[in-house]
Amino acid sequence: MCEGTVRIQPCSGHAVELEAGDELVVIDPMGQQVSDLTAFNREDLDEYLSSGRSIDYASKLWLTTGDTLYSNRSRPMFTIIEDTCGRHDFTLTPCSKEMFEKLYGEEEGRPGCEGNLARALAPWGINRDRVPVAFNIFMHVAVDAEGKIAVLPPLSRAGDHVRLRAEMPLVVAMTACSAGQSNNFSYKPIDFRVERASDRAKA
Amino acid sequence: MCEGTVRIQPCSGHAVELEAGDELVVIDPMGQQVSDLTAFNREDLDEYLSSGRSIDYASKLWLTTGDTLYSNRSRPMFTIIEDTCGRHDFTLTPCSKEMFEKLYGEEEGRPGCEGNLARALAPWGINRDRVPVAFNIFMHVAVDAEGKIAVLPPLSRAGDHVRLRAEMPLVVAMTACSAGQSNNFSYKPIDFRVERASDRAKA
Repeated sequence: MCEGTVRIQPCSGHAVELEAGDELVVIDPMGQQVSDLTAFNREDLDEYLSSGRSIDYASKLWLTTGDTLYSNRSRPMFTIIEDTCGRHDFTLTPCSKEMFEKLYGEEEGRPGCEGNLARALAPWGINRDRVPVAFNIFMHVAVDAEGKIAVLPPLSRAGDHVRLRAEMPLVVAMTACSAGQSNNFSYKPIDFRVERASDRAKA
Repeated sequence: MCEGTVRIQPCSGHAVELEAGDELVVIDPMGQQVSDLTAFNREDLDEYLSSGRSIDYASKLWLTTGDTLYSNRSRPMFTIIEDTCGRHDFTLTPCSKEMFEKLYGEEEGRPGCEGNLARALAPWGINRDRVPVAFNIFMHVAVDAEGKIAVLPPLSRAGDHVRLRAEMPLVVAMTACSAGQSNNFSYKPIDFRVERASDRAKA
């Protein structure tokens, strides 16, 4: 792993603060793993990453290099400046305890990405109710002509990554996904790295 | 119009309280108009209608008769018990002042469905930041094989309607849509009617 890379252990989450101009690199270190990502304006936590705004402004479901991720207030939160995978989802809510019960018949009460995002965001006072539809990095959701959706194994290979430039001060939370169907039942870790604008300015 | 039918004037919104078992009939009286609908648990307003949960549990983008609309807490909020149109959207956020500026080049500052939903929900203390991806009744969004989306004229004809049964006590807000592209630049009204479970019990 590069210097400064942080490993998100399987089935867990992590949050980090970014300044405008910082770059967040989200890496699938082993391939076929998903990272659900959400974000909030650090200076006003009622402003959050909005799937519906981002999809509308891009006029497409699947965002990639050059696309902007917008907030509910229609302001840019991130720009995708690199994407070596090219396929992510922005329609589904993070997996949750209730989702595991309904779709997988589980009764163990695992928190899922929703619970793990909420746990990571708790220091900022953000609870589970406020975890929206996430930007599900590397998640492969196919839609057929009748609108049926299928969750397929991710197209990501070991080392694939997405580089996001923060466009405002943010709190961002990410997971290593807990949903078997989303990660081809492999439950691997996710790595991330923050490249600070302030370090580039010094260099 | 049937007795008890309320007209939502063009480019405006309306909110109403429902008890579990009440039925809400949303009608397109003239055809090719869209109604953005959102809802909150009346007893705990942090629980709201979730596109991502509903799409995930239905395994399809386009919901119709027999499908359930879920909350962010994975609990049923509505069941669609009649749908004479068959095509609605659940991926896009309501049109807004900023969306009109970005996509249509407008500068008049019209509130859009987002502003009209927030205005209708203000008596319950719900503001614009809390208007999520709506269930956009009669909105016709097509997705091609590459994920490109197109907003097409609604398939609804005069008199088409959707009948939703409330599955919990709700505050629900609806609009007559303000976005030209969504309603084929016709800006018509929307009608709705509430059939109370308590009235059926008396009959």
